[in-house]
Amino acid sequence: MKQYLKLDEWSIIEEGFDPENHEVSESVFSIGNGHMGQRANFEEDYTGKTLQGSYMAGVYYPDKTRVGWWKNGYPEYFAKVLNSTNWIGLNIAIEGENLDLAKLPVRDFVRTLNMKEGYLERTFIATLSGGKEVKIQAKRFVSIVDKEVGAIRYSITPLNFNGELKVTSYLDADVKNKDANYDEKFWDEVSKEVTTNHASVTVVTKKTEYVLCSTMKTELVHDGLKVAFNPVVSEKEKYVAHTFAHGLVEKKETVIYKYAANVTSRDHEASSLAKIAMDRLQGALVKGFETLLSEQADAWAEKWKESDIVIEGDVAAQQGIRFNIFQLNQTYTGEDDRLNIGPKGFTGEKYGGSTYWDTEAYCLPFYLSTADPKISRNLLIYRYKHLEKAIENAEKLGFTDGAALYPMVTMNGEESHNEWEITFEEIHRNGAIAYGIYNYVNYTADKDYLAEYGLDVLVAISRFWAQRVNYVSSKNQYMMLGVTGPNEYENNVNNNWYTNRIAAWTLEYTLSVMDYIKETDKARFDELESKLKISSEETSKWVDIIGKMYYPFDEEMGIYLQQDGFLDKELIRVDELDPKHLPLNQNWSWDRILRSCFIKQADVLQGLYFLNDEFDMETKKKNFDFYEPMTVHESSLSPCVHSILACELGYKEKAYEMYLRTARLDLDNYNNDTEDGCHTTSMAGTWMSVVQGFGGFKVKNDQLILNPFIPGEWSSFSFKIVFRGALLNIKVSADEITITNETKVSTPVIIHGTKHTVNGSASLTIQY
Amino acid sequence: MKQYLKLDEWSIIEEGFDPENHEVSESVFSIGNGHMGQRANFEEDYTGKTLQGSYMAGVYYPDKTRVGWWKNGYPEYFAKVLNSTNWIGLNIAIEGENLDLAKLPVRDFVRTLNMKEGYLERTFIATLSGGKEVKIQAKRFVSIVDKEVGAIRYSITPLNFNGELKVTSYLDADVKNKDANYDEKFWDEVSKEVTTNHASVTVVTKKTEYVLCSTMKTELVHDGLKVAFNPVVSEKEKYVAHTFAHGLVEKKETVIYKYAANVTSRDHEASSLAKIAMDRLQGALVKGFETLLSEQADAWAEKWKESDIVIEGDVAAQQGIRFNIFQLNQTYTGEDDRLNIGPKGFTGEKYGGSTYWDTEAYCLPFYLSTADPKISRNLLIYRYKHLEKAIENAEKLGFTDGAALYPMVTMNGEESHNEWEITFEEIHRNGAIAYGIYNYVNYTADKDYLAEYGLDVLVAISRFWAQRVNYVSSKNQYMMLGVTGPNEYENNVNNNWYTNRIAAWTLEYTLSVMDYIKETDKARFDELESKLKISSEETSKWVDIIGKMYYPFDEEMGIYLQQDGFLDKELIRVDELDPKHLPLNQNWSWDRILRSCFIKQADVLQGLYFLNDEFDMETKKKNFDFYEPMTVHESSLSPCVHSILACELGYKEKAYEMYLRTARLDLDNYNNDTEDGCHTTSMAGTWMSVVQGFGGFKVKNDQLILNPFIPGEWSSFSFKIVFRGALLNIKVSADEITITNETKVSTPVIIHGTKHTVNGSASLTIQY
Repeated sequence: MKQYLKLDEWSIIEEGFDPENHEVSESVFSIGNGHMGQRANFEEDYTGKTLQGSYMAGVYYPDKTRVGWWKNGYPEYFAKVLNSTNWIGLNIAIEGENLDLAKLPVRDFVRTLNMKEGYLERTFIATLSGGKEVKIQAKRFVSIVDKEVGAIRYSITPLNFNGELKVTSYLDADVKNKDANYDEKFWDEVSKEVTTNHASVTVVTKKTEYVLCSTMKTELVHDGLKVAFNPVVSEKEKYVAHTFAHGLVEKKETVIYKYAANVTSRDHEASSLAKIAMDRLQGALVKGFETLLSEQADAWAEKWKESDIVIEGDVAAQQGIRFNIFQLNQTYTGEDDRLNIGPKGFTGEKYGGSTYWDTEAYCLPFYLSTADPKISRNLLIYRYKHLEKAIENAEKLGFTDGAALYPMVTMNGEESHNEWEITFEEIHRNGAIAYGIYNYVNYTADKDYLAEYGLDVLVAISRFWAQRVNYVSSKNQYMMLGVTGPNEYENNVNNNWYTNRIAAWTLEYTLSVMDYIKETDKARFDELESKLKISSEETSKWVDIIGKMYYPFDEEMGIYLQQDGFLDKELIRVDELDPKHLPLNQNWSWDRILRSCFIKQADVLQGLYFLNDEFDMETKKKNFDFYEPMTVHESSLSPCVHSILACELGYKEKAYEMYLRTARLDLDNYNNDTEDGCHTTSMAGTWMSVVQGFGGFKVKNDQLILNPFIPGEWSSFSFKIVFRGALLNIKVSADEITITNETKVSTPVIIHGTKHTVNGSASLTIQY
Repeated sequence: MKQYLKLDEWSIIEEGFDPENHEVSESVFSIGNGHMGQRANFEEDYTGKTLQGSYMAGVYYPDKTRVGWWKNGYPEYFAKVLNSTNWIGLNIAIEGENLDLAKLPVRDFVRTLNMKEGYLERTFIATLSGGKEVKIQAKRFVSIVDKEVGAIRYSITPLNFNGELKVTSYLDADVKNKDANYDEKFWDEVSKEVTTNHASVTVVTKKTEYVLCSTMKTELVHDGLKVAFNPVVSEKEKYVAHTFAHGLVEKKETVIYKYAANVTSRDHEASSLAKIAMDRLQGALVKGFETLLSEQADAWAEKWKESDIVIEGDVAAQQGIRFNIFQLNQTYTGEDDRLNIGPKGFTGEKYGGSTYWDTEAYCLPFYLSTADPKISRNLLIYRYKHLEKAIENAEKLGFTDGAALYPMVTMNGEESHNEWEITFEEIHRNGAIAYGIYNYVNYTADKDYLAEYGLDVLVAISRFWAQRVNYVSSKNQYMMLGVTGPNEYENNVNNNWYTNRIAAWTLEYTLSVMDYIKETDKARFDELESKLKISSEETSKWVDIIGKMYYPFDEEMGIYLQQDGFLDKELIRVDELDPKHLPLNQNWSWDRILRSCFIKQADVLQGLYFLNDEFDMETKKKNFDFYEPMTVHESSLSPCVHSILACELGYKEKAYEMYLRTARLDLDNYNNDTEDGCHTTSMAGTWMSVVQGFGGFKVKNDQLILNPFIPGEWSSFSFKIVFRGALLNIKVSADEITITNETKVSTPVIIHGTKHTVNGSASLTIQY
């Protein structure tokens, strides 16, 4: 944990340049627009430690898997997010000297991520040889209005000299992934074009054959006047450049504008990419940098209108939550149902940039409450489209008859992960995908989704569970052997309570969905029954499993057992451990972690969170009191669920402690790994902590429920909720709650058990 | 499984050349002498598929580990046996045409491994362009008399032409390992010398800095007369060669003799290697090929005298068992206590050529019964010398106070393996190492070993067990969580019966050894007690653990449970499976294997085999009847233990079936993987099947016990037993047993429960 960023409500600010922090800052200051994104690499050359990263959403490479010892069933390929064409590159030489912050003295360095308006800015003064000082102001963004466009304003002011500037503005597609398993480059050149007006390079990924065309145009403005220039053109493999010179004048500002368009064959015909890229570039040039930027600010204002959280009295908390919301909105916009939310968004390569169960378990609630329902719907349709691959995946593991196992990690529906204890055994993810459907329908009341897409997925997952359990005749119960639960600090256990419960819950929910469709649209039901080949034998079997599922439970303590044999462990509280052992995953060997009682992230408690209404407060309390003290929260996804449950149980201090562990995870580099990228999916958990935790927000029986309480450290907090056509702004302070309805849709709300109505375009204040 | 080798009692014979079989034959026809060995690569160039392999015992390279997902505690390096200088190379060109069996028509090809005399021979006729036929006879061996010497007799007879022969005789150290993780070469050149008389190359391994000097001399004999020649010398990096020409005459034999010495810094000062290599070479030249070969035959006769098994009436079984004994004797001679028995011997690279628990569990009995006790003692001392590293290894996993965990795989005492479920959890290996001490002392009565070396190891292993168990107060029992038993088709189970039992047994045995030393040599005991810091608290704790160890057991069936929860599995017999699923490890995903009941190799039954006398026949029967039908024997180490127990239980057919699965494993390429090398350690299991199984041989209370029975397919079988100074030849037929004492040491023997004595230099025949 290292705090070097300045506190501010709307911006992330780094003052002073420390190369040691640079890779962390490259992650934190990342920009993206759902279509593309990039780490906060410098535009000019930088020979210090850096992780170059420019990513195009959905463009991936199936890198050949690398394992130590192969296990039958491992996937051959691991889908990787691709470092793509570097379009920001500006090599800057002044009086023949290269501008390189790794080599020159730098002062007044400020890097700012303006979250309100959606751009990255950097200013500094570098000292060249002979004491020549030059001031640089670089501002850039990727447009959320014109998704394929990025623009840079790069300003150069010599403070105490006149001299020659030489600029090389380039597109470089000759890039690598740091995490390439066999040190390969993943891009091949298709074509390039370089005229004195513009330059473009078109490349294609090996194997997957995604084509990316990038086009650039560079402009020069001196002391406010546009300067015409005739660049020297050059090219190398997968690289094109414009080089031009210009006379810098003391104290006069010279500005380089660089515009780029990045278009891919995911969105357009490969053959027309060059033309489309030129059209997009042309569009950007017509608008110009300032117009593009002002449109960007307007569009971000719209996003904030729906998703902002305001915390008063705690700037660190305010900055933390806005950073999380900003990164989520940069990562996924929900407009493309082929995309999903990678665990690092556009901020790094790690984990393959792929889809995990994080999406359904953590991200979906954020998008449900802060955006148009079609965005959440697209997240569900993403899985619907992968159903066939999920069935194939299950077949590879020996399942039959349409049983589906959704992958642990995926880009295109195929499994990418290869640790047997995760890939093959962490099957509870299948339950989360079913739960996502429930969550979406419960929230939006879009029950049509069930007959249209939902049931196909639910039946296939139910079939998996029905085949995965085994009946133990001596006990007349169904069991589930050899699984890994959400707590990945246990592997290959028998009867993980959460997995058994979410499996039976899936069967229950699937049957209830079938009943609903049968009741409301018999013809459609018959059609689905026939298409999906659902028989009464099959559903009877499901009913039998539901009734006879085995749930490990300790009568005496009244707790669900995380798995069979859990109580045979030595039960120790985390606070009894010498802190030198923490984090366990860096200090203990794997076997020691496994046989210990220590819990990585919510497991039994994940079930109590998901299926909250099934359990009485006493049960939640007993389980929380038993498990939380043994939990080390070494997954970024852990603290939020504990914070929410602690809020529900009235454990105020624990709730705030857990909130702090999630809110500034990347800003303060809590886990000492932010240089790899931000923990994007867990950011949604932070949002949940505020809204579901402190806000006590949930939707039950089509009712919007709030049970807010406010941490003592805050004077107030407010959040937005999009709910069935209404947009509510909910402000909580110590003695009252005010709900402002920003739409005309009158909305009933249950606050601390009492029903109220927030009329359209009105406010409601309830004093406690 | 593919049978292409000819049956013969004393030789392995391949008739006809099929490139498809070549790599398997390269493994099967391997030659070795304990100091060095090599695959049966061709001397002349071969451009077809081949795995080049020449290995020097104990010379290894710590190749950087390659894993998919790193777990804390993994070793950084994996010790690899090294493909070393190719000293057999002879490039043969006739009339300008290269002799290459991948390219020329070949007939009358016969490859023979003469196991009686210890050499490899190959004859064939190749047809060159224009129908020129040339007959080749190549014979070579590595001397078991002069360990550092190898010799080749390579005979060339043109059958229908005169023509020019051009020979390049070379040493090539510019070789690679096929299994190099990062495609590196592991050898660097130190120096080379090439005169017209001889040539040598000295290379050093990276990191480990083993120096290997190889020296060669080539001679030419035409039609029986030695021909002087003046070779052209040449050299490249890590390569030296002599090239010379000679006129071949139709139907006259030209013979190339190539002598080589290979000496390493493991045995000599690095600075004197060149001189020593020349001395060794000189010695070989003075003896000449025929003398060297006749000494080789004599030395092998001595080995056979102690270790041969004769099976009458079943040539396949005879050939199989002799092949196993031959390979074991080629692999390990026991003269060097720094060496051990790699799972592939000198026949391939796989598994790193390192030491596994196979040594104590499978190989030790073979060497105990067929060789001087000092050889077995050296195997024990090998582990004694690694004690410090085993303690370090345990420390890395969090153990303290001198607890030792011997590695799963090692070359120098450090752990090399990196699958967490094996490396960290397959800890029963520690028990096998303790059991090896028991086994050695029980067999040899060398009780002095205990105070000298044994107790140090036993105490350290006992300390490991005492820390590894955890006390479950609610049950007042000690448990062992998170282990992998010998059945590697279960991972991370709780209370593997075998592991719990061998752990408690270790504690029992260690305490009994302490008592023995205390009683027989109090002074030495006091010294050891003080050196090892043994306290009465510690031994009391051991006694407590012994008394309260938890053993999973099913009362109703009267069986020990392989682990907690085993009976919750679906229990299916292997013969109920559709054969298309077998072998499981090639057809099922790992999770499916894990949650199935199917057993890879003896687990509970391994305990019944090791601690045989603890269990009554009824218990053995119940457990065998329960577990064997669920056992798939997908480890080469499995059938032998089952064969032995089946013999004891009188299950004759099962015993013979299991014997067949082990005896010709490599000759018939049963597991379809012999091209990687032979299953050397399991060959000792085959020997055990005959001697301990069919022979019913064991040593108990200093008594030699025999309970023989003969498979119906055999007319008789006989084996040798070295026992406390006596060498007994035991011949079993259907109606009698004859024991011939080949020494003067009178030896009592209990046959089928009746005590007899075999007098010195006498025979005893007992009719049933």
